[in-house]
Amino acid sequence: MLEKIDLSRKLGKDEYRKTAPPLREKLGELQRRARAANVPIIIVFEGWEASGKGTLTNELILPLDPRGFRVHYVHSESEDSQNVYWPPMRRFWDITPPRGSIGIFSHSWYRAAMDEQPSGQGRMGEICDGISSFERQLAQDGCVIIKFFLHISKHEQKLRLKKMDSDLSSTWRVNEREWRENENYDAKAKKLDEMIQLTDRAYAPWTLVESHDRRHATVKILAAVTGMIEKKLDELESAALKETLQEADGPRDGQDEISILAKSTLSPSVLKNLDMGKKLCQAEYDAKLPKLQSRLRDLQYQLYKVRRPMVIAFEGQDASGKGGCIKRLTQKLDPRGYQVSPTAAPNDWERSHHYLWRFWTAFPKAGHIGIYDRSWYGRVLVERVEGFAREDEWRRAYGEINEMEAQWRGYGAIIAKFWLQVGEDEQMARFRERQQNPEKNWKITEEDWRNRDKWQSYEEAAEEMLLRTSTTYAPWTIVEANDKLYARIKVLRHAVSAAERALGIERPE
Amino acid sequence: MLEKIDLSRKLGKDEYRKTAPPLREKLGELQRRARAANVPIIIVFEGWEASGKGTLTNELILPLDPRGFRVHYVHSESEDSQNVYWPPMRRFWDITPPRGSIGIFSHSWYRAAMDEQPSGQGRMGEICDGISSFERQLAQDGCVIIKFFLHISKHEQKLRLKKMDSDLSSTWRVNEREWRENENYDAKAKKLDEMIQLTDRAYAPWTLVESHDRRHATVKILAAVTGMIEKKLDELESAALKETLQEADGPRDGQDEISILAKSTLSPSVLKNLDMGKKLCQAEYDAKLPKLQSRLRDLQYQLYKVRRPMVIAFEGQDASGKGGCIKRLTQKLDPRGYQVSPTAAPNDWERSHHYLWRFWTAFPKAGHIGIYDRSWYGRVLVERVEGFAREDEWRRAYGEINEMEAQWRGYGAIIAKFWLQVGEDEQMARFRERQQNPEKNWKITEEDWRNRDKWQSYEEAAEEMLLRTSTTYAPWTIVEANDKLYARIKVLRHAVSAAERALGIERPE
Repeated sequence: MLEKIDLSRKLGKDEYRKTAPPLREKLGELQRRARAANVPIIIVFEGWEASGKGTLTNELILPLDPRGFRVHYVHSESEDSQNVYWPPMRRFWDITPPRGSIGIFSHSWYRAAMDEQPSGQGRMGEICDGISSFERQLAQDGCVIIKFFLHISKHEQKLRLKKMDSDLSSTWRVNEREWRENENYDAKAKKLDEMIQLTDRAYAPWTLVESHDRRHATVKILAAVTGMIEKKLDELESAALKETLQEADGPRDGQDEISILAKSTLSPSVLKNLDMGKKLCQAEYDAKLPKLQSRLRDLQYQLYKVRRPMVIAFEGQDASGKGGCIKRLTQKLDPRGYQVSPTAAPNDWERSHHYLWRFWTAFPKAGHIGIYDRSWYGRVLVERVEGFAREDEWRRAYGEINEMEAQWRGYGAIIAKFWLQVGEDEQMARFRERQQNPEKNWKITEEDWRNRDKWQSYEEAAEEMLLRTSTTYAPWTIVEANDKLYARIKVLRHAVSAAERALGIERPE
Repeated sequence: MLEKIDLSRKLGKDEYRKTAPPLREKLGELQRRARAANVPIIIVFEGWEASGKGTLTNELILPLDPRGFRVHYVHSESEDSQNVYWPPMRRFWDITPPRGSIGIFSHSWYRAAMDEQPSGQGRMGEICDGISSFERQLAQDGCVIIKFFLHISKHEQKLRLKKMDSDLSSTWRVNEREWRENENYDAKAKKLDEMIQLTDRAYAPWTLVESHDRRHATVKILAAVTGMIEKKLDELESAALKETLQEADGPRDGQDEISILAKSTLSPSVLKNLDMGKKLCQAEYDAKLPKLQSRLRDLQYQLYKVRRPMVIAFEGQDASGKGGCIKRLTQKLDPRGYQVSPTAAPNDWERSHHYLWRFWTAFPKAGHIGIYDRSWYGRVLVERVEGFAREDEWRRAYGEINEMEAQWRGYGAIIAKFWLQVGEDEQMARFRERQQNPEKNWKITEEDWRNRDKWQSYEEAAEEMLLRTSTTYAPWTIVEANDKLYARIKVLRHAVSAAERALGIERPE
C-alpha cells in the first residue's frame, strides 16, 4: 500500500492560510463539545523516523485547551523499564484518556509492531491481535480512535537524517537505529504494510499522511481529526434524539422477547446441581490447613524467582465466606509479595475510564500475587443485575474479559478464579449471626438484605458468567461454601495446584 | 542507643495468648474508627536484615480489613528504576495512604539512610532533613506516623542468616549484602543510632522493638499501634467537642486581632508599585518572539541531554494572560518533552491525600519540562481567600512549599515562577471582550465575576506569597501583564535565562 501513495502532494502558502485557521478554530470548538459529551479521544502518530511526528503533533495541539489533552511519548519496549514487570498492554491501559479528554500518542501500542525486524517471523499477527482487541474495547466504550501514519520516501528520509545529523542541536537524535531503518527501508515498508492492514478497522481506521510537505500534512491531519470527532458527536446526538422519540412511543417489545429467549437457553443448572452438603470436620481441617499454607508460601517464593505473577479472584454471594478464605490463603504468605484488592463500586476517577482500566492498572507485578475480593466480574454480576451496565455492555463483557485474561496468561500469569456458592438458608443464618454479634454487625448493611431479594437474578447472572468465562487458560472453580472449613481447604488446594501445574511440578497424591 | 536495648525480653505462650487476641480485636475496631474519621495512618518497619520484618508485618495485618490497608515493599534506590527519573522523595509521596486508610511500609523512605555505608561522610544529616520534612508535613496534615525499628544482636543475626542459607526455600534471600551487614554490624549500629536520633520526633516517634522473641515483638508492635491510633482518635474527638462548645460560646475575638495585626505588617507594596504601563510594539514582538522560541527549543534539548527537569509555574489573576503566555512558551517546543498541567480544584481522589501529593506525583521526568497553569500556590491564594484552607493550614504552607521546592532544586530541577499582574480596569476590559466574543465566552464564568469582588483579598494573598516564597533557588518573576505582548516576551526571556544560568551558559547582551 505504502508504495502507491503519491508523496508529491503539496499545499501552497495561500491555500494553507485559507484552510488551516478555520480547521483549528473548529477543533477548539469540538474539544469543548467532546468534553461536554464526555467522549474520550485517542490520536495516534506513527510513522517513519524523521517523518515529523514532533512537529505535526505540535501543529495539532496548538488550538487545544491544555486542560483537556495530554501528549504521551511511548518508548520502545526495550527502553521502558516498566515492561519487565507487567503484561505488554498494561502500560497502554494505564494511560488511556479519561472521558472528555484527549490522549495524543507519539508512538503508541504500535511500538512492538513498528520495531518488528523485517526478518522477524510470524509475531506480527499476534501483536496486531492484541492491539485490535485493545482498540475495539475502547471504541465500544465510546472512545474515538484516530490513527495517523506519517509517510516519507527512502530518499526523503535520508536527506532529513543527514540534515539533522549535521545540525549541532539535533545530531544526538540520529543514531544507528535511524540509519538502519533507512538502509532496510523497503523490507520494513512491507512489514508496515502488514501492520496497517491488520489493524485498519472501522472503529479505529488509519489515515496515511503524505509528510514531505508540512503544510499539506498539517491540513490533512486537522481535517481528519475534526471530521472524525464531529461525526462521533453528531452520531451521539442523533442517537440521543432517537431514544427520546422512541421513549415517547412506549417500550419496545422486541427486547423482551430476546431476554426471554436468552433466559430459556440458560436456565440455571450448574449451581443448582451442586452437592451443598460437602463438609470437613475440624480435626481434618486443622491437619490440612497448615500444610497447604506452608506449601503455598514455598510456591510464592518459587513464583517470585521465576517472575511469574498469579491472579486469584473471588466472587460469590454476600456472606459466602470470601473474606475468611482470603484470610487463610494469605496467613502464611510473605506480605511483601501479595496484595489483596477489594473491589468496591468505582470512584469518580475510575468511572471516567473503561471499566477494565482499574484492573489493568492494578495488575500484580511480575512474581507477585494479586488477590481480588470481588473483581472485574462485577460487570456481569452486580452491574448486570442492578442495571448499572446496559444489556449490550454486559453481554460484550464476557468476550472482553476473556481477551484480557488471555493476554495476562500470554504474559505468563497464573489465573485462578473461585465462585463461592452458599444456599439461601445458610446465607440467612449468617446474616442473622452477623446482626447479633456486635463485632460483626458492621459487616452487614441494608444493601445485603436488598441483594437477597434478587437472589434468583444473581444466580442466573452467575450461571451465565461461569458458562461464558471458564476458559482453559483461566478456569473457574466452584466452591460449595455452606461449610466454611470445607470451602477454605478447597480454595487453598486449588490455588496450590494451579501454581504447581504452572511451575511444572507434579505431585503424587 | 541500640547497644543499651535489653534483647533478652521474652513473652511466654500463656501470656501471649492472654494479651495478643484483645489487642488484635481492638486494632480491627480502631481501623474502622480511623476510617470513619478519615485519618490516614503510616506504619514503618525498618530494622536489621533478618530481623523479621515480613513475619511481624503479617502478624500486624491479620486482624485488618484488607479494604483499608496496603503493604509496600520499598527497594533500595539502586534497585528501583524509577529513582533515576525523579527527585528521591517523589516515589514516597506517590504511595502515601489516602485519608482513612493504612499504609504499611516494609523498608521505607529510610532506605537511603539505612543503606548509608559506615564509611559514608556527612550525607546522613541531609537525608534525615528530607525525611523529617516529609513526615512533618504529613503529620500536620493529620496523618498518624508509627515507626518500628526491629533490633537483633550481631550474634542472633548471624544465626538467622545461617539458618536461612541452609534452607532451600530461603537460601536465595541471603546474599552478599546481608553477610556484609553482619560483618560491619558495630559500625552500622552507630550509623543507625544517628539516623534514629535525627528522625525521632514527637509527630513521628520511633519504637524500638526487641525482636529476638517473636511473641514479645508481636505484642509490643500491636500495643504501640493500637495505642497511637487510639490517642489520635481521642484527641480528634475531644477537639471536635471543644469546638462545638466554643461555637456555642460565640465567636472568638482573639482570632480577629491576629488577622488585623498580620494585615498591617503586610500591606501591599510590591504589586502596587509596579510600572503597569510597560509595553511592546508589534514589530518588536514579531522580531523577538521567534528568536526566543527557537532558543528555548535548543535549551530544551540541552536539558534533555543532561537530564535536568524544569518546572515553570504560572499564577495571576483571571484573564491576566496565563494561557497566552503558555501558548507562546510551548509553540516551538518538542511536545514529547513538555507537559502543560492545568491546576483545577482537586478531585475526590486528590482531596483524599495531602494537598502537595498531586504535584509531587506530577513532577516532570528528568530532562522534561513541566508547565503549570496555576499550581501548588493555590493553597495560599484561592484556598486562603475562599476559606478552603484554615488559617493555620495556609500559614504553614509557605514553609512546606519552600521545602518542596528546595528538594526539587536539590535534585537538579530548574524552577521558574511567574506572577502575571493586570490592573483592575484592564481585567474588566478583558472580561467584557470575552463576553462579547462568541469564540471566547466559554472562558468566562460566574466565578470570574465573583473573584473580582475579592480583588483586594487576592492581592494581599499574592503579596504575602511573593514575599514568603521568593527564594534563591526558586525565585518569582513578577510580570506586568497589562500589555500582552510585553508579558509574553518577558516570560520567554526569563525562562530562557533561567535555563541558561542553570546550564552554565553565559550570554552577552
